[in-house]
Amino acid sequence: MVDVATAHEVKNPQIDVEQITELLMGTWADTRREAREMIKDSAFWRKDDLGKDEHRERVLSQLHLLVENRAVHRAFPKRLGGEENNGANIAGFEELVVADPSLQIKSGVQWGLFGSAVLQLGTAEHHDKWLPGIMDLSIPGAFAMTEIGHGSDVASAGTTATYDPETEEFVIHTPFRGATKEYLGNAALHGVAATVFAQLITKGVSHGVHCFYVPLRGDDGVDLPGIGREDDGLKGGLNGIDNGRLSFDHVRIPRTNLLNKYGDVAPDGTYTSPIDSPGRRFFTMLGTLVQGRVSLAGASSWASALGLKIAITYATERRQFGGADGQEVVLLDYGKHQRRLLPRLATTYAQIFAHDEFLQKFDGVFSGRTDTPDDREDLETLAAALKPLSTWHALDTLQEAREACGGAGFMFENRLVGLRADLDIYVTFEGDNNILLQLVGKRLLTDYAKQFKGKDAAALAKFAVGQTAGKVFHGAGLRQLGQAVADLGSTARSVENGLREEQQHELLADRVQQMVADIAGRLRAAGKDKELGARLFNENQAELIEAARAHGELLQWEAFTDAVHRVSDAETKKVLTWLRDLFGLQLIEKHLAWHLINGRLSTQRAAAVSSYIDRLCARLRPYALDLVDAFGYEPEHVRAPIATGAERARQDEARAYYAELAASGAAPIQEKALKKR
Amino acid sequence: MVDVATAHEVKNPQIDVEQITELLMGTWADTRREAREMIKDSAFWRKDDLGKDEHRERVLSQLHLLVENRAVHRAFPKRLGGEENNGANIAGFEELVVADPSLQIKSGVQWGLFGSAVLQLGTAEHHDKWLPGIMDLSIPGAFAMTEIGHGSDVASAGTTATYDPETEEFVIHTPFRGATKEYLGNAALHGVAATVFAQLITKGVSHGVHCFYVPLRGDDGVDLPGIGREDDGLKGGLNGIDNGRLSFDHVRIPRTNLLNKYGDVAPDGTYTSPIDSPGRRFFTMLGTLVQGRVSLAGASSWASALGLKIAITYATERRQFGGADGQEVVLLDYGKHQRRLLPRLATTYAQIFAHDEFLQKFDGVFSGRTDTPDDREDLETLAAALKPLSTWHALDTLQEAREACGGAGFMFENRLVGLRADLDIYVTFEGDNNILLQLVGKRLLTDYAKQFKGKDAAALAKFAVGQTAGKVFHGAGLRQLGQAVADLGSTARSVENGLREEQQHELLADRVQQMVADIAGRLRAAGKDKELGARLFNENQAELIEAARAHGELLQWEAFTDAVHRVSDAETKKVLTWLRDLFGLQLIEKHLAWHLINGRLSTQRAAAVSSYIDRLCARLRPYALDLVDAFGYEPEHVRAPIATGAERARQDEARAYYAELAASGAAPIQEKALKKR
Repeated sequence: MVDVATAHEVKNPQIDVEQITELLMGTWADTRREAREMIKDSAFWRKDDLGKDEHRERVLSQLHLLVENRAVHRAFPKRLGGEENNGANIAGFEELVVADPSLQIKSGVQWGLFGSAVLQLGTAEHHDKWLPGIMDLSIPGAFAMTEIGHGSDVASAGTTATYDPETEEFVIHTPFRGATKEYLGNAALHGVAATVFAQLITKGVSHGVHCFYVPLRGDDGVDLPGIGREDDGLKGGLNGIDNGRLSFDHVRIPRTNLLNKYGDVAPDGTYTSPIDSPGRRFFTMLGTLVQGRVSLAGASSWASALGLKIAITYATERRQFGGADGQEVVLLDYGKHQRRLLPRLATTYAQIFAHDEFLQKFDGVFSGRTDTPDDREDLETLAAALKPLSTWHALDTLQEAREACGGAGFMFENRLVGLRADLDIYVTFEGDNNILLQLVGKRLLTDYAKQFKGKDAAALAKFAVGQTAGKVFHGAGLRQLGQAVADLGSTARSVENGLREEQQHELLADRVQQMVADIAGRLRAAGKDKELGARLFNENQAELIEAARAHGELLQWEAFTDAVHRVSDAETKKVLTWLRDLFGLQLIEKHLAWHLINGRLSTQRAAAVSSYIDRLCARLRPYALDLVDAFGYEPEHVRAPIATGAERARQDEARAYYAELAASGAAPIQEKALKKR
Repeated sequence: MVDVATAHEVKNPQIDVEQITELLMGTWADTRREAREMIKDSAFWRKDDLGKDEHRERVLSQLHLLVENRAVHRAFPKRLGGEENNGANIAGFEELVVADPSLQIKSGVQWGLFGSAVLQLGTAEHHDKWLPGIMDLSIPGAFAMTEIGHGSDVASAGTTATYDPETEEFVIHTPFRGATKEYLGNAALHGVAATVFAQLITKGVSHGVHCFYVPLRGDDGVDLPGIGREDDGLKGGLNGIDNGRLSFDHVRIPRTNLLNKYGDVAPDGTYTSPIDSPGRRFFTMLGTLVQGRVSLAGASSWASALGLKIAITYATERRQFGGADGQEVVLLDYGKHQRRLLPRLATTYAQIFAHDEFLQKFDGVFSGRTDTPDDREDLETLAAALKPLSTWHALDTLQEAREACGGAGFMFENRLVGLRADLDIYVTFEGDNNILLQLVGKRLLTDYAKQFKGKDAAALAKFAVGQTAGKVFHGAGLRQLGQAVADLGSTARSVENGLREEQQHELLADRVQQMVADIAGRLRAAGKDKELGARLFNENQAELIEAARAHGELLQWEAFTDAVHRVSDAETKKVLTWLRDLFGLQLIEKHLAWHLINGRLSTQRAAAVSSYIDRLCARLRPYALDLVDAFGYEPEHVRAPIATGAERARQDEARAYYAELAASGAAPIQEKALKKR
């Protein structure tokens, strides 16, 4: 409203945008740049006016382009022409989201799911036989895991693979309608084979879900006997992918089509596995496919970045309503508009930094460098924590960005509605977000319980006392700090000093710990009573999911902080610290009631959090454009007419028109002004 | 998890679903039923597989069907074949949303905006000349208010209408690109005329924005000279409407095409108006078009209802993951799932009840029964408060419903993604939601200031003391109440008793008052310093919008409570009271930090709010299906395959398959079970 002209001129610190870009691009910056360079070619872009059928064909042809550009082989074995570079593979794959999410996900189906199943669950013979065709797309395939009746609960899949020692074949069968494989990319049209998850039954014993390579179509292009195929038709987004259903009516495949890395059946029907526990075996197999979650987290964060690039660019050009000086005000100078966009920008930064750490972990495990069962478990927990947060954040951010652009945001050409529609499904596929967070919550409870393993009642009682002491200490600790800095004379400053890095971390970390401890305490009442246990768990389910979310937020905050510490330029570091503070404080504000109820913040300090956030927004306002430019997107990636400077040109033209009219003396007098005379 | 089988069997009170339906359908229940009956005809339904162009033609043909069914004439003058029944008109119009939101909004453009402009801003001559053709759709028209450069800020529109006394014509002109009329339904293709808002200039004086009837196309179907027309192309939703842009290059129209109810120009160019103040005149003209906001609020609430009908029906049929008894659990028996859907159900009820009161107010004003300037102002404030809340709630609810249905929710045929995409724009059109709430906030500040009009400094000081006393009293009041009921012995009960109707109202109402008082206090510092005033206002903008939201929530809560009081059946009243409590308590939970910081709730009581909500959800669980059935939708309205019982049939088939297999003795043994032997 005021200081408009100055607000985005006066930047006290000068920041180094290139250094920030480097930081954001992360460990596999080169691969990201390579992918971004490739998709500058308009052949990779979404064409908005295509109907579902044409869109599907276009995306298929784009997949061939990816093959030609050698853009999808990075994870495959070197001996087959790949690079065995798992981190780079995911990084490059994520970047495709700004070309067209349908392209990203269809290539994910082909190489990340179908291809990975053969690579990760199969053995050398399978690799030699099928990977070359999968890599060059002569074998487009479906990844047939989900069933109509079982989404996130894969272990309960109904499809059966019963071994017949007479013919040395598995019989793949869909015993009831709910066991039909559902929502599979490549299933409606293009898939000629599928990796099918089914209950492996041999010698009258069910060994749980295993994965089988099942040809769907003969060389004549006609579906093989027993294969049922249906089209899912129109979806809320991703309509460039031919999702569909597959069912199997006693389809026979050779014994050797079992992808047998973690479980095998001998010709006589004897089952063997390197992993004794059926539960652990199942989770190990599923764990090899974690990359889907990894890449969705990254792609979502970059989609949020693109949304903010568009909305913040527009908000610095678009003017609406007159200010005190009679000039119309640029949207981003409104307090509410800053509040809508800047905390989301801070969160997007946090997610991109957290994602790079996550990707390093992934690369460590899959390269074999740091591949222990603990590493794998950590990786899965990370994936289960970060994928929900990033994917929900993308929907929230793209929606806020679209609303912040008003009617222009609703025009398809401006990208926001299309990206949001396409990313919608990211929050429930590759594991429903709530179920993933529940997994994280269970892991947190397990880790918590480990502390007491072998401890007696006295130790537990002592711990309980410690908890209370900690609680009291915390309240006191923060209060003392507040008093100490209050001596500086300014209450606002005192709050800022009391909510710096160390205190933010303490508040966020303590919250996770305390929530988990509280839930564990409430669950303990069940003892060995299974039914009571189930009831108590259900009563605490929503809060456990909240605790898991808090854990993910803490991870993001820590990653942001680590990134800030790596910045060498002092001025850049200062601005990124403000942005990190904004991220931390908006988390604290979101959970303010919790911090108050649990004595972590005094009411005075809590009341000051919101105005501190307002001050941070105002402080960051002059850097908003730099901070979105740092995402490194070029015009061929952005492609939204409202983010091209067109709005600025229109506004300038309008202002020039009125200025000229006034100067010419031909401007009409306003009736209001006339009345005042 | 537990009590699953019993949870949805044991309903202690039996509720009267029909009575609830009657209550929800409200004052114009008959019209709603008539409209719902009409749209059972599949000719009115959205066909998902149509591309934009075919969808546009289909919706145009559906508009003709509406004319044939006499479904759109209710608001027009009796002498022209209408009914002059404004309330019924809106009620019937809202119901169209479940047929196809494109149909709803295109008919809104034709009869609610274009037609209403002629009716409300024009005079008898205009009515006679154009309304018959508008009513029978021989004159499809656009409502040209918004410009590329000016969305919600209509007063700053750039289009000019300059009077030329020589020819007794107005010259309509678009002086720069930003003044192009934008996002107009019927502008890309079907409109043959438009009501154009432009700055009226005569004798060198600009009298502000007025509305003009401008023919776009001659009888030959060709655009008239000077008319520029562009197509907006694909949008995020509502693609059955041909939105586009209109520009005017010195287009001449007769003087009498000025819709002159609130301002006229004599042949010699003399301007007259029954309203002396240009500001009040402008707001009066705009106020006559409030029905758009009224109907969007209602349509959104009913769309939320439909989304919940689909998601809750599915959640009572869909099973996932095994419970303690080995059977898979129905989704709605999970604590988190209840938490996701039931508070949104409560909010939808609140909105539907609030909307009916709002519609009564609207009908009172527009019928002339209660048409004072105060009534008009109240109506506009109501519209500005309720439209944002209902439209945002619809997006939130449809999204949560879609996620709660997993992949099935993403399939277009299940309606949720389509409705959400179509309703997306409701939050920014007919006034951007944030700007509308800011209007409400300003009104609250004005009303607050009125209390002090003519009072001296002493009175103000006395008030300030009163404020503090009130604050202290409140804290004490609630604490006392808590202590009194604590004597009953149960803490949980004591919380429930301390958060009943009266206390909920107190908490919600006090919050509005206190927030407004706090903001007013902070703004007062500016005194007569305009620049400081603008800066302070901007700093408080986000909170003022929050205060306005709180005001809207209070209105909804009061309407829900009034509705509950009207229920005669005691058991039904009990269940609806729980639902109202759920609505009130989730509002209190959402703003818990505020209540804590402002001493309205003790930490103990605040901590109990969430578990009270959990208990309410569990208590309402057995009634969830009844409560969505009470919306009165029939299969022809729902049309979502997942809400037809298909899922139940699939689940039953699967369970029967396993039961039969177990009974036959042919079931494979689980490896896990084998190992335990």
